[in-house]
Amino acid sequence: ANEGSVEELSELLDSMSVAEQAYVFSHMEDDAEAVVLRRLPAEDAADLIGHFNESEAARMIQLLESQAAATILQEMPIDEQADVIGDLPEKEAEAILQELPQQNADNVRELTAYPDNVAGGMMVVEMLRFRSEMTVAEVIDEINRGAEHYTDLDVRYAYVCDDEGRLVGVLPMQNLLFVKRYRKLGEIMIKDPLSVRTTAPLEELAEFFESHVYLGVPVVDDDGVLKGVLHREAVQYEEVRAAENDYLKSQGIVGGEELRTMPVWLRSRRRLSWLSINIFLNLGAAAVIAYFQETLESVIALAVFLPIISDMSGCSGNQAVAVSMRELSLGIIRPTEFFRVWWKEFTVGLINGSVLGGLIAVVAVLFDGNPYLGVVVGVALCLNTLIAVSIGGVVPLLLKRFGFDPAVASGPLLTTVTDMCGFFLVLGLATVMLSRLT
Amino acid sequence: ANEGSVEELSELLDSMSVAEQAYVFSHMEDDAEAVVLRRLPAEDAADLIGHFNESEAARMIQLLESQAAATILQEMPIDEQADVIGDLPEKEAEAILQELPQQNADNVRELTAYPDNVAGGMMVVEMLRFRSEMTVAEVIDEINRGAEHYTDLDVRYAYVCDDEGRLVGVLPMQNLLFVKRYRKLGEIMIKDPLSVRTTAPLEELAEFFESHVYLGVPVVDDDGVLKGVLHREAVQYEEVRAAENDYLKSQGIVGGEELRTMPVWLRSRRRLSWLSINIFLNLGAAAVIAYFQETLESVIALAVFLPIISDMSGCSGNQAVAVSMRELSLGIIRPTEFFRVWWKEFTVGLINGSVLGGLIAVVAVLFDGNPYLGVVVGVALCLNTLIAVSIGGVVPLLLKRFGFDPAVASGPLLTTVTDMCGFFLVLGLATVMLSRLT
Repeated sequence: ANEGSVEELSELLDSMSVAEQAYVFSHMEDDAEAVVLRRLPAEDAADLIGHFNESEAARMIQLLESQAAATILQEMPIDEQADVIGDLPEKEAEAILQELPQQNADNVRELTAYPDNVAGGMMVVEMLRFRSEMTVAEVIDEINRGAEHYTDLDVRYAYVCDDEGRLVGVLPMQNLLFVKRYRKLGEIMIKDPLSVRTTAPLEELAEFFESHVYLGVPVVDDDGVLKGVLHREAVQYEEVRAAENDYLKSQGIVGGEELRTMPVWLRSRRRLSWLSINIFLNLGAAAVIAYFQETLESVIALAVFLPIISDMSGCSGNQAVAVSMRELSLGIIRPTEFFRVWWKEFTVGLINGSVLGGLIAVVAVLFDGNPYLGVVVGVALCLNTLIAVSIGGVVPLLLKRFGFDPAVASGPLLTTVTDMCGFFLVLGLATVMLSRLT
Repeated sequence: ANEGSVEELSELLDSMSVAEQAYVFSHMEDDAEAVVLRRLPAEDAADLIGHFNESEAARMIQLLESQAAATILQEMPIDEQADVIGDLPEKEAEAILQELPQQNADNVRELTAYPDNVAGGMMVVEMLRFRSEMTVAEVIDEINRGAEHYTDLDVRYAYVCDDEGRLVGVLPMQNLLFVKRYRKLGEIMIKDPLSVRTTAPLEELAEFFESHVYLGVPVVDDDGVLKGVLHREAVQYEEVRAAENDYLKSQGIVGGEELRTMPVWLRSRRRLSWLSINIFLNLGAAAVIAYFQETLESVIALAVFLPIISDMSGCSGNQAVAVSMRELSLGIIRPTEFFRVWWKEFTVGLINGSVLGGLIAVVAVLFDGNPYLGVVVGVALCLNTLIAVSIGGVVPLLLKRFGFDPAVASGPLLTTVTDMCGFFLVLGLATVMLSRLT
């Protein structure tokens, strides 16, 4: 791209909304991206990068020299800076941190020390922090002096700490409107406020904000020292990400989010790492068919129904997986309740298995004319539906209980087992009834 | 349950967090639920019901007489009241609305007029609304008088309207701290503030809050009249729901969310309505096998590889679906970009298809000893991977463009077509090369 067209492109980008910019950006080459990022005002570049997920944002930042990268990053909220820098290779991260103002770099270092999905990784570290001896007038004065800065901070509460930095009270900002200005914070603050630990995981935080209407909650370390403020939005943002990730994983995008702007070899490798596990799992089901090859050869009509049994059982099982995943995320079942979940699935499976088995039996008889073929595939689908919903319901609990990610492993485990069982049932029953079928 | 044990249960529930209550609740019978809901303080019952999704909340509310239901609903935010009441049968809804205070009922009626996923359905209608002639002192006085009420409202901005109720300005609450009390709102307000229409859909609202750091935005009708306030959390809450729903739908829970506390016939019927469409789609793939029955009979080893081809292609296609769904939701591809998406998928499919085809060819030769069998299944899997990723990538765009829900229909459409193509490729190639295979 020549200089003139880049100039025009920058102007064009300036006139677009962030979402439109992101759309255009995802259709550009790396070189052009870098040129435009350098040309955009730092604040706009920061908005644009903020539209992408962390790994994509990190890729874009790596297109720039550390000086330019730092200028852009500075315009982002500290927690987003930390997310992006945390995704960079250590050397690049360090180079950029060197270019950031000391205070900013220190704040980022503090946040990158925590994983993204605990309170410490989601909190903001800039906040209004006062001593309890201060009067309301003094506080208003101080806020007034830094008004511009504080507006950026999106301040909702003032926090009161003791000499050791331990949190002792909280004051909603608007309350400052309603009290006499000579009063001391210690008298009007809410004492012993609720707080969360820096190490509190996403689930606990989501429950906190579901049970309480607060917009933010102070984050403290093990000694009760105030380390930051966690906003409700930050938790909801992580919840959206978690739900989206579960969806991607359940569909086989496992090694990290993929966008079609990424290099083809990276996309291919990530997808293959997952597919190659799956091809291996598939050999189990193939082995069952191989074992019954002779039966299949003498009743070739069975081959027509094997894929239906496999697909339908997988479908029934996936429904059970989805309900278990949902109930786990709502906290209304626990990973130990195998029996309860199994029984609830069993009852549904009994109805659905009978209906589906009956349907497929009718189809088989119409197709082949032999009623015994209908019995074999009907009974097999009915039984395999029961197996599929039982496994589908219970497997997510088991995986969760033993510390695996149920979104990733439930599907393949389920289809592997239901395929094997389904083929075994059809071909095993057919072998037993072989004289009636030929 | 006798009275004594219910009493004890109520006390026990009182001592639990909302999440724990929800857990216990989802393990109780309807009768017991109703008794406990009546016994709990209305505020606690409202918190508890708020923990469940709308349809479940509506079920719980229906367990109660309309008087008791109204008492509990009154404790919920207006927008949640509207969500729950909107899910009730019309007669029950009307009975409860009769029991609510007039103003409350009117507000609910206004909100239920909008779908859940547009600005009008997510906004709150209670807000601070002033005239531009008022002074800061008058405003602070008025807020002070209703301080308790306003704290519940979670007030962040004051809105300034003209005589016709049209929005003319906005004032962040904390700004009231920094200005002289004799000044008029008209002088200090932010003029021509940003707003959204009552009919703005979720996607537009999500983009708004992504591009702007505001905590809330005023909602106006076509004439610019202020109708309510939309909070950032409300939009994020709907985003979480949308992501979770996409996951559930992609796994075959289509007719509405399912919890295992629902009656077994309802759960069974909802799942079956989906499964029965699927069994019909499966007949297409079965027909392909039936057509090639003779080839299959003479080379029975092919039957061993059919399920692998089917499962692997489905897996590759699902990966492409997931990436397309993600890019659509991020707005970085548009529903018209078939060619671009197809080409990006084609390149990945070429690599992955070759690798997987090679793998399966090796397995086939090891299994059967005939190199031509390897060629047949290898080439078939390679070609079918290309087909699967092309369809998987493009189908969500097509469905979206023509107004269908891509989360629901992408998966089944994909597997139907890839199964048919996969079986056709394997058995067609085998028929052509029949002399070499037998």
